[in-house]
Amino acid sequence: MIITIGREFGSGGKELGRKLAARLGVPCYDKEVIAEVAKRHNMTEDYVDNISLRDLRITFTPTVGKSFDSPIYFNTNASQALVSQQEIIKKLAEEGDCVFIGRSADIILRDKNPLNLFIYASEEAKLARCLENIREGETEKTILKHMRKIDRDRAGTRSILCDNRWGDKESYHLCVNTSGKDIDALIPGLVAYIKAWFAE
Amino acid sequence: MIITIGREFGSGGKELGRKLAARLGVPCYDKEVIAEVAKRHNMTEDYVDNISLRDLRITFTPTVGKSFDSPIYFNTNASQALVSQQEIIKKLAEEGDCVFIGRSADIILRDKNPLNLFIYASEEAKLARCLENIREGETEKTILKHMRKIDRDRAGTRSILCDNRWGDKESYHLCVNTSGKDIDALIPGLVAYIKAWFAE
Repeated sequence: MIITIGREFGSGGKELGRKLAARLGVPCYDKEVIAEVAKRHNMTEDYVDNISLRDLRITFTPTVGKSFDSPIYFNTNASQALVSQQEIIKKLAEEGDCVFIGRSADIILRDKNPLNLFIYASEEAKLARCLENIREGETEKTILKHMRKIDRDRAGTRSILCDNRWGDKESYHLCVNTSGKDIDALIPGLVAYIKAWFAE
Repeated sequence: MIITIGREFGSGGKELGRKLAARLGVPCYDKEVIAEVAKRHNMTEDYVDNISLRDLRITFTPTVGKSFDSPIYFNTNASQALVSQQEIIKKLAEEGDCVFIGRSADIILRDKNPLNLFIYASEEAKLARCLENIREGETEKTILKHMRKIDRDRAGTRSILCDNRWGDKESYHLCVNTSGKDIDALIPGLVAYIKAWFAE
């Protein structure tokens, strides 16, 4: 029983994933994967968490004439970090039932037939959720900008791994809209759905 | 407890809706609505079932210079049929808990806070489902063409009523991918999800 959670920034997907895992009595992997990659490669967790397509693309361009260009070194590291991430995700999945949040785990683990959820919400609802935990210096405008950037990066990083696109409903088994709903209210129904799915 | 089912042609959405209703012990409205509209307007059920945006658009264009053009008469009828359909859906919803299949019931009944599901599948899976009940004279090619036309018409007809688009996950509470799944296998999980949703 492997469940993967794709999610839009601000949709409450991370909270939902953690709560599902708790209710199912299985581990939930999110920052744990990032921490392990960071440790292996002597990177900051923040760096690993935010590797974007742009960081990687440079790795794929010809290095001719650029061999003294230090960013190539860093970008090779970025792609090695993603390779490590895949290894770690596969290793964790071998240990037993679990929930993975993000990290394209649905694609990395496709041979294990995970149940792939995508959690989303209206921009209004996502903004409202983010405003509940607003940090100093943030405004509605900066939050919206950050929200869109994070999701754009998620879509980009996924596009390296597969053709089915981030956020397209066709890429997932079940897509859950959290607009106007407490995450807690969605857990019992989803737990039942997941149990039925794997009982088959 | 009002549940609406939007669905792609061939996704098994109609079967899923009927089985959900049966398991929930509530009526399921699909052809019943069409039959009532057809009766009221002395139309064939097939005609009512297939009113498309094109049928209606002509109604909205200026009639100047077209007053002898008989299609205008028929098209006015088409839009009256859709108005009747809305009245009938609202009346049925007043009678108690139920499931509506298609007919933009999610929009028509939005004041009653229905749970809006969208049922979809990969084109491959939808084609396979249609091929199980292939009729004389049909081929893969004609089925695919028909499938795409029906869904295009559904999207078009919905666009008259609202801005949130047919098939966009943002327009629904829960989107269910039926690819590679028996509809029966999805029912227990969805029934639990629906009960939890309305128990809140």
